[in-house]
Amino acid sequence: RISPPQLIALSFAAGILVGAALLALPVTHGAGRSVTFLQALFTATSALCVTGLNVIDPGRDFNRLGQVIILILIQVGGLGIITFGTVFALVTRRRVNYSERIRLAQQVSAFSAGDVVPLIRNIFLYTFVIEGVGALLLALRFVPLEGWGRGLFYAVFHSVSAFNNAGFALYSDNYLRFVGDDLVSLVTAFLIILGGLGFLVQLNVVAHLLRPRRNRLLVHSKLALTMTAALLLFGTLIYLGLEWNNPRTLAPLNLEDKLLASFFQSVVTRTAGFNTLDYGVMGPATLFLSIILMFIGANPGSTGGGIKTSTFYVMMASAWSMVRGRGEVVLFSRRIDRETVIRAMTVGLLSIGLVNLMFVLLLIFNTNPNLPFLHLFFESVSAFATVGLSMNATPLLNPAQEIVVILLMYLGRIGPLTFAVAFNSREEADLVKYPAEKDILIG
Amino acid sequence: RISPPQLIALSFAAGILVGAALLALPVTHGAGRSVTFLQALFTATSALCVTGLNVIDPGRDFNRLGQVIILILIQVGGLGIITFGTVFALVTRRRVNYSERIRLAQQVSAFSAGDVVPLIRNIFLYTFVIEGVGALLLALRFVPLEGWGRGLFYAVFHSVSAFNNAGFALYSDNYLRFVGDDLVSLVTAFLIILGGLGFLVQLNVVAHLLRPRRNRLLVHSKLALTMTAALLLFGTLIYLGLEWNNPRTLAPLNLEDKLLASFFQSVVTRTAGFNTLDYGVMGPATLFLSIILMFIGANPGSTGGGIKTSTFYVMMASAWSMVRGRGEVVLFSRRIDRETVIRAMTVGLLSIGLVNLMFVLLLIFNTNPNLPFLHLFFESVSAFATVGLSMNATPLLNPAQEIVVILLMYLGRIGPLTFAVAFNSREEADLVKYPAEKDILIG
Ligand SMILES: [K+]
Ligand SMILES: [K+]
Repeated sequence: RISPPQLIALSFAAGILVGAALLALPVTHGAGRSVTFLQALFTATSALCVTGLNVIDPGRDFNRLGQVIILILIQVGGLGIITFGTVFALVTRRRVNYSERIRLAQQVSAFSAGDVVPLIRNIFLYTFVIEGVGALLLALRFVPLEGWGRGLFYAVFHSVSAFNNAGFALYSDNYLRFVGDDLVSLVTAFLIILGGLGFLVQLNVVAHLLRPRRNRLLVHSKLALTMTAALLLFGTLIYLGLEWNNPRTLAPLNLEDKLLASFFQSVVTRTAGFNTLDYGVMGPATLFLSIILMFIGANPGSTGGGIKTSTFYVMMASAWSMVRGRGEVVLFSRRIDRETVIRAMTVGLLSIGLVNLMFVLLLIFNTNPNLPFLHLFFESVSAFATVGLSMNATPLLNPAQEIVVILLMYLGRIGPLTFAVAFNSREEADLVKYPAEKDILIG
Repeated sequence: RISPPQLIALSFAAGILVGAALLALPVTHGAGRSVTFLQALFTATSALCVTGLNVIDPGRDFNRLGQVIILILIQVGGLGIITFGTVFALVTRRRVNYSERIRLAQQVSAFSAGDVVPLIRNIFLYTFVIEGVGALLLALRFVPLEGWGRGLFYAVFHSVSAFNNAGFALYSDNYLRFVGDDLVSLVTAFLIILGGLGFLVQLNVVAHLLRPRRNRLLVHSKLALTMTAALLLFGTLIYLGLEWNNPRTLAPLNLEDKLLASFFQSVVTRTAGFNTLDYGVMGPATLFLSIILMFIGANPGSTGGGIKTSTFYVMMASAWSMVRGRGEVVLFSRRIDRETVIRAMTVGLLSIGLVNLMFVLLLIFNTNPNLPFLHLFFESVSAFATVGLSMNATPLLNPAQEIVVILLMYLGRIGPLTFAVAFNSREEADLVKYPAEKDILIG
């Protein structure tokens, strides 16, 4: 009998191996290009884990068939993550009591209660509708730019890549050419933000907007919306403030484009991995704060990575309440129980430990003097948090380092997902001032 | 009415200002040297917080009078830290119940029970005896090297600096010249290890050795001894393994000196700050692991800094028990209660947060292209954990950065000390399998 965490780990590993085998076939490679098995394995891992790091150039080293396989890997990976996350949150997790779970399921599946099949159908339906709308909007730019055939494919590819927070682009410079392009930047950013909110939050918001009385906003949704807004604002201010005078990033742009580029980079840093500015030439302060944003990541139950906004919030809020000498953490008038606090801190610490361990391996294996400390640190966090941004270090990695990054992408993807499921739930007989809050997803 | 944390914060601030005023007086400066007030403030902070970072060269920029003032600041700082830590652990902390406290006090003061005055007298007596023995042994090298007057002063200065984990040396190259010197290396290392064990542990061990039946080894002592041994071994292996081939550190040394230097660097990295190898030329993997060792630091209740070995152990052990699906952490057959787990994780996360925040400020204020990311990161952790090692970056800091490092040394010193006192204690009505362990000092 196989446990849910084992199921997740095995299904991702199997998907990666199938994808790698397909991408290693010469029939998927670009004309005159060749891709080694390790490069195919790296690309398949990056696609299925919706990371977006690339040792090669997917727009040139793979032909249309190879790109379609990458597209399918991204879509399967993204749907897999959302489905696993949502189903486990609603059905398997023992922490949410049964009646709460039914009520939650009723809200998010909007039509039918509790069953897994209609829930998954709704997830698929919703995903394809949003991606379709995104592709139509992007086609307004890509068709004039690339012609009908290529333009439509590019529109679909980048819409899927954005909504699933994959960060794969078919241009060699990723999105650098779109730095001042309102349409591409804003549509892509909007798809990324929606994808990063998570399925439960999106449907809860839709249900709430349609019938505010019947469908209240869940604590989980309120937290996700608040944290997303706060982190987006914080990130925009970081890029705007610290890169304003950098002649290789913001300085040459006019005010409107400075704002657009800062907002876009703020959106992608949290987990998506597209970029309209070059992270290889940003200042060290910007890069370090980007590393922190990447590490925090997106909301639980989304295709985004990192330790998740809720984990970060609970960690910070409980540390702060400890400093203030208070025994409990309160969130939207509900008490967060100690088990949740310990779980959040555990996810945070294990993640820091894993990233540091893998980073040390990257340092020890390093043979390239053009890969300094910061480049490899940035790369480690980007891989772990399935962001896919790079200080242009990925193509410079040697095979041993590529294997470390593959491991990091895989563990960064399945780790938080399986923690959320694997944690043993134990009820606490505690003095309750506020009703205990147990349905915040951690990891 | 003043609270214990406020008392600690204020007395350290007052001591720093008095020290800075004295070290700013020209009468304390070396012949032909001048020291600005900011440099004096930096030196006084570094001395009183027993950190050991230096923007100037204390062996040359101060005369004998200035060096005596530094010596006094180190001794006052060290005794202050031990006394505060021990008294609060035994007397003020509400977490240890009264009868346990009396028993603990009986053990450690060895003669009389519970009173603060004999306890403090014993702390002072014990400190001076160890420092005296250390000075006599060091004089065997320093007197032949420097003559009677200077040699004896150097012996006393370096013994006090070592036992208090201060890391101040009167040679411009710190301890580089003693890389192959068994006597100086081993005596200094032994003083550092004793000082880093903490007063409670040392007296508990002595009492245990004298009367094994009456005075059992406390859980706190067992943990401190185990962690110290494990971290020393781990550190030695890191330096030995990663620097073996480095032509600028271990490569030129013979096997015995390689071992001696690796062991010595392992001892100092954990908090003391002397160095017989140059950290400015070590490999990035060595440096990153050194940063982790510095961050972990020494034992609670000692003059060492960092988040402390017990905090690190509880964090790691509880994260591991969470992964294994166990609800509780067991240490030497005793259960660690959840309050302790949350406290440990809080100390760890707040420390990471503080170091990162100050590090970002160092990056933002940076004007020197010769101070890259890693140098400033190493400097931040070294200052916070009151280690005092540097990749030779300290003298290159600009005034704004010096102020940040001063703040970091001060907060890194008083932060963990006051957390340990400030945390509110709340009893838990929990299902107990093992007797709850509440007397592990955190921070
Ligand atoms: K991504
Ligand atoms: K020190």
